[in-house]
Amino acid sequence: MNLEEDLTLPPRQAIDWVDGKVRFIDQRLLPAKLKIVETDDWHVIARAIKGLSLRGAPLIGVAAALGVAVTAVKYRNSRLQKKLLSAIDGLYATRPTAANLFWALDRMKEIVVQTPDDEDLVEAVVKEALDILEDDRRRCLAIGEAGNALISETARILTICNTGFLATGGEGTALSVVYRAHEAGKGVHVWICETRPLLQGARLTAWELKNAGISFTLLVDSAAAGLIAAGKVDICIIGADRIAKNGDTANKIGSYPLALACRMHNIPFYVAAPESTIDRECPDGSKIIIEERSPDEVTGFGSKKVAPDDTPAWNPAFDVVPADYITGIITENGVLEAPYMFE
Amino acid sequence: MNLEEDLTLPPRQAIDWVDGKVRFIDQRLLPAKLKIVETDDWHVIARAIKGLSLRGAPLIGVAAALGVAVTAVKYRNSRLQKKLLSAIDGLYATRPTAANLFWALDRMKEIVVQTPDDEDLVEAVVKEALDILEDDRRRCLAIGEAGNALISETARILTICNTGFLATGGEGTALSVVYRAHEAGKGVHVWICETRPLLQGARLTAWELKNAGISFTLLVDSAAAGLIAAGKVDICIIGADRIAKNGDTANKIGSYPLALACRMHNIPFYVAAPESTIDRECPDGSKIIIEERSPDEVTGFGSKKVAPDDTPAWNPAFDVVPADYITGIITENGVLEAPYMFE
Repeated sequence: MNLEEDLTLPPRQAIDWVDGKVRFIDQRLLPAKLKIVETDDWHVIARAIKGLSLRGAPLIGVAAALGVAVTAVKYRNSRLQKKLLSAIDGLYATRPTAANLFWALDRMKEIVVQTPDDEDLVEAVVKEALDILEDDRRRCLAIGEAGNALISETARILTICNTGFLATGGEGTALSVVYRAHEAGKGVHVWICETRPLLQGARLTAWELKNAGISFTLLVDSAAAGLIAAGKVDICIIGADRIAKNGDTANKIGSYPLALACRMHNIPFYVAAPESTIDRECPDGSKIIIEERSPDEVTGFGSKKVAPDDTPAWNPAFDVVPADYITGIITENGVLEAPYMFE
Repeated sequence: MNLEEDLTLPPRQAIDWVDGKVRFIDQRLLPAKLKIVETDDWHVIARAIKGLSLRGAPLIGVAAALGVAVTAVKYRNSRLQKKLLSAIDGLYATRPTAANLFWALDRMKEIVVQTPDDEDLVEAVVKEALDILEDDRRRCLAIGEAGNALISETARILTICNTGFLATGGEGTALSVVYRAHEAGKGVHVWICETRPLLQGARLTAWELKNAGISFTLLVDSAAAGLIAAGKVDICIIGADRIAKNGDTANKIGSYPLALACRMHNIPFYVAAPESTIDRECPDGSKIIIEERSPDEVTGFGSKKVAPDDTPAWNPAFDVVPADYITGIITENGVLEAPYMFE
């Protein structure tokens, strides 16, 4: 019997800290299988981030911080500072776009370089990582509450990718708004874009909403514009991987065409994200590095090949929604409106 | 040994009439397998149209006409008129959106009702069907030549779905333009939207262009807007399933968001289609019946289930591009420009 099958996590939680180890859901296998992994090795976490077993900008940040923390516990007596800096470097290099990853690792790095290399360092590092986790949970709740004020009793909400508990340390960003609205007794309906190429909408968001008993319908990404044109959407809410100083927002590929269609049909278009997603060093969207992933994700599906052999494919993971298209940014500090000038 | 493996078709031809039978490529199996089917049974053709073994608006029209013709040959001595009308009815009912299907069947029906029920009827019906096939071949060439005048020496052309020889009786509509430009020695590059849910772009267009030695890159549908915003597209050309009197055009789901992005970034957006695609009875796009297909096409990927069990999905096969977004309609009679007022 595989011991891992006995591992559990609390409801609506994608990651946790359990006795000096990190426990997380391997999201590649959902919804077919709920596999929970436990590790004390930051390499396992780095690989999970790279391979999208752990994904969602806020969750990546939390997972990276906890990856540093397990390293502290594991090597508590042996040249710890050097080991921690090496773990931080390795985790930095996993994915280039999500601001939260760098934000969390910068916080961890500051603790590591400022604390003497002794038993206190272990405690300080673990405390900082758990603070980041707890902090993210609180931020998710606050985002959900702030966003819920925008949701009508019968709102039909369009979203893309997964922005729920599988994307954060807490209960999500855009989907936290949906959870709060549902809990408030509103009869919301969610239109989920399937989110090619990796289908986080079809696999993860559908799974979360089904489990929560929230009404939803799945559609292919390219059907969203026709849906909006048909008057079937009241509000669109997406997450964010990086928000530039002027409000330009990098998010899952397909976000920009949703914004275009919402603009054309006067549908409010919101971004929901913790302030850790804002990159104040980045003046605007043109400066955001967009991760380009393997062509295999486009030419095939899982292990199934679709396109002819040797088909070249362009596979950007994100696109940029200009600030001008964003009705408001829902953060843990309320709903911010244009013009955005993050200091 | 399966005799079917010996069947062949001429290069760049998806369908043909061979000794009183119809021979066609089963497109569901491409690009993994090139299977050619031969039949004298209109039910086989109707099922092939319904199941998308035969697809592409002009090809559906041609196939339906040939389906009536095989029926005439097969039942030449037995109450033929009634059998033919029943075949026509059955073929009418396969798919609701493609105008060419109804156009071709209307032509066949007229012959059937106007010709006495004797040997002449067989000949007349076969002749009409072969005329429709030949006619489509000529139209495809003329569309390609008219469109080629719009293509620069180094054009980067964006397209969706399959509009090549697999979509017509000839060498295609939008893709006929690409073939003609390539033959004229232009160094064109084609950006192919994969075209969820059934991936006609990834499976069929990539296969055609690879075989023709034409440079191309595949992308997920939702990446097209970012591609256009990045200045990497010079012209967008799509096919059409039905064009209303005012020029509003129903085409593969995802066409409308391409038009929105082209408009936003001042990229010319063309529709390429034979005039048989124009429905002069239909005043505008709001009156076009949009086929909604099975949710299974969205909740799974081929035979692989993706979304959780019982996930509801909305699966429209087409959307409508308003005439206002269309720079021109490339037909066998040249490039028509707005305002469109088809009489």
